[in-house]
Amino acid sequence: MTPHLARRTADIQPFHVMELLRRARELEAQGRDIIHMEVGEPDFPTPQPMIDAATRFLTSGDVHYTAALGLPQLREAIARFYHDRFGADVAPERIIVTPGASGALMLALAATTDPGDEWLLPDPGYPSNRHIVRSFEGVARALPVNADTRFQPTPAQVGGAWTPRTRGLIVATPSNPTGTLLDAAELAALRAAVLARGGTLIVDEIYQGLTYGVDSSTVLRSMDDVFVVNSFSKYFGMTGWRLGWLVAPSAYVREIEKLAQHFFISPSTPAQHAALAAFAPSTIDILEARRNEFATRRDTLLPALRQQGFIVAAEPQGAFYIYADISQLAADSEQFAQRLIEEVGVAATPGLDFGDNQPRRHLRIAYTNRQERLLEAVERLARLRA
Amino acid sequence: MTPHLARRTADIQPFHVMELLRRARELEAQGRDIIHMEVGEPDFPTPQPMIDAATRFLTSGDVHYTAALGLPQLREAIARFYHDRFGADVAPERIIVTPGASGALMLALAATTDPGDEWLLPDPGYPSNRHIVRSFEGVARALPVNADTRFQPTPAQVGGAWTPRTRGLIVATPSNPTGTLLDAAELAALRAAVLARGGTLIVDEIYQGLTYGVDSSTVLRSMDDVFVVNSFSKYFGMTGWRLGWLVAPSAYVREIEKLAQHFFISPSTPAQHAALAAFAPSTIDILEARRNEFATRRDTLLPALRQQGFIVAAEPQGAFYIYADISQLAADSEQFAQRLIEEVGVAATPGLDFGDNQPRRHLRIAYTNRQERLLEAVERLARLRA
Repeated sequence: MTPHLARRTADIQPFHVMELLRRARELEAQGRDIIHMEVGEPDFPTPQPMIDAATRFLTSGDVHYTAALGLPQLREAIARFYHDRFGADVAPERIIVTPGASGALMLALAATTDPGDEWLLPDPGYPSNRHIVRSFEGVARALPVNADTRFQPTPAQVGGAWTPRTRGLIVATPSNPTGTLLDAAELAALRAAVLARGGTLIVDEIYQGLTYGVDSSTVLRSMDDVFVVNSFSKYFGMTGWRLGWLVAPSAYVREIEKLAQHFFISPSTPAQHAALAAFAPSTIDILEARRNEFATRRDTLLPALRQQGFIVAAEPQGAFYIYADISQLAADSEQFAQRLIEEVGVAATPGLDFGDNQPRRHLRIAYTNRQERLLEAVERLARLRA
Repeated sequence: MTPHLARRTADIQPFHVMELLRRARELEAQGRDIIHMEVGEPDFPTPQPMIDAATRFLTSGDVHYTAALGLPQLREAIARFYHDRFGADVAPERIIVTPGASGALMLALAATTDPGDEWLLPDPGYPSNRHIVRSFEGVARALPVNADTRFQPTPAQVGGAWTPRTRGLIVATPSNPTGTLLDAAELAALRAAVLARGGTLIVDEIYQGLTYGVDSSTVLRSMDDVFVVNSFSKYFGMTGWRLGWLVAPSAYVREIEKLAQHFFISPSTPAQHAALAAFAPSTIDILEARRNEFATRRDTLLPALRQQGFIVAAEPQGAFYIYADISQLAADSEQFAQRLIEEVGVAATPGLDFGDNQPRRHLRIAYTNRQERLLEAVERLARLRA
């Protein structure tokens, strides 16, 4: 049977790292020890307060649909968190609880993107963003970014790439895979460049809270005419629950509610009840301790990698990734990643997963693993070079 | 701020019943008693074995992403269920676990539908199906169906509506809102009509298991070249968990996996662990007792409604809905539904939510409420007519 596939499927790439992971699992099945530094989720369990909240809720058995936009009390709790933690006033009515940040981005793009509409996205960047653009028949246009601008796009670049079909710009702070941030002035300048052209700005704040040596913030402190995508996965440690949220400009909420009804009916009810415990002071204490642990890992790993010949020109200040230039070590990061697994048992993600901008020169190394394992990985890297 | 909305949003309608629900809640806040017969989910709690399985899993705290296609052991359990319950051999590799049946339909349509491709859908039908078609820039073409064919489309109708742009047919058995079934011969004839024209058949089996006076089956017993959408929501009583699955023809699975990675990353991990308990004999005992309860409700409600002047020409044999012709009672089902709420405190869903085929003549009445409440609702209806 020859499948009759939609044209979009030809443009949508898999996560290439999955192939490496398959190989890693084969080697592990043979008894080899693999240090996993390719994983894009915290290695910590879901904090106990969220587990307890979900378990308490489940004893009722009353796991029915919620409103499509999410539990009102959760939308209010998120609004309070924006106020108390970041000094941002966000009306709960603008907060749409979603099945993960992916669900939030799907809603934002489905609500705004006609066939042929172009979105500008920094390259390297999180691959699903461009694939969701493509899925709704938009066109993802890469803005190649590099260490000179800390892997973030500039207003000049936005202006230069803008066409009559450009619908807007999607940026991420902190960025995956580079861990770099946009400060308030840079975000204001990007917003101005986009809005002056009649476009829309979407800010991915999925790694909000996971910043090191600098406080987290939100673009919502000063702007109410942009979309913000966020998640309970990373800072809050709830990846498997699949819960995120979208903050939309007020004028879009009613239309997005319709889409949410049809795409999702409602977000996961147990996950929403778990998330009600996410903002409690006792939970934040746990999360801040984890943030400190991530900071320590970064501070250990970054100089050690540099000593091994990895070039990291733009200091990562957030998320849990180091996007390293491997040009002093190898010609091709995909082959290099294969060698790392086969020869010394270290898994990392080749740049290929993040776009077309010098991907074979870069490797994403996640510090979602214990300190001692990271140090052992560095020793293994040294062995590879020896 | 004037929102810059995608054109698709103008074509996507909200669930109209939400307005009625808002009014029902207002009245309830004023102390009025409303009998809810508009709700599209079982009134039963999630069965205890699933609650226990989830709770046990949560004690580990290890709520991380799973594979994008779902936990291998859950895909195998679903395959075993197909074999043991329905005598259908379905390879676990073809089973894709999704965030609800909505997620399954999104994957099937995103994988197969180019802009302008037409899908044929029975009208009345579940509204999200046509809105998801539209969201991926397909065109939903209604096949008006009525009681003569038990609200199911015929091969002749499919042939008559087929155009060079037609991509395929989506049918549901049991159907929402009519509760009618397609038998094996009818499904075979519809498949033949679709495949002869180079099209694709999607069968919505979301209400599988909830049939009364007739055994449930699956189209997968005799066909491996169709898509099947299913859910843990209805028969298994897990609505709020948001978990369903898609069975795809083998040749599509790899492409659908890519889409699932980007759309969802993975289905909810707690929900998947809960669902592992869904097929145990002790769970099935609970579910079959509920099925008997639904059958009793139907057998009580259906004659009582007929006695009140509701016309139900095509016997509903599944799901938990009665799609009643109200033309002997009122000229417009939307106004009638408003009167029901305001005057006698009964909530039901006007036909408007299910398409354009005589919607004002029909009302969907769900028996997702206790027997005594259903009987009280009938008494109230009698009062309305008096």
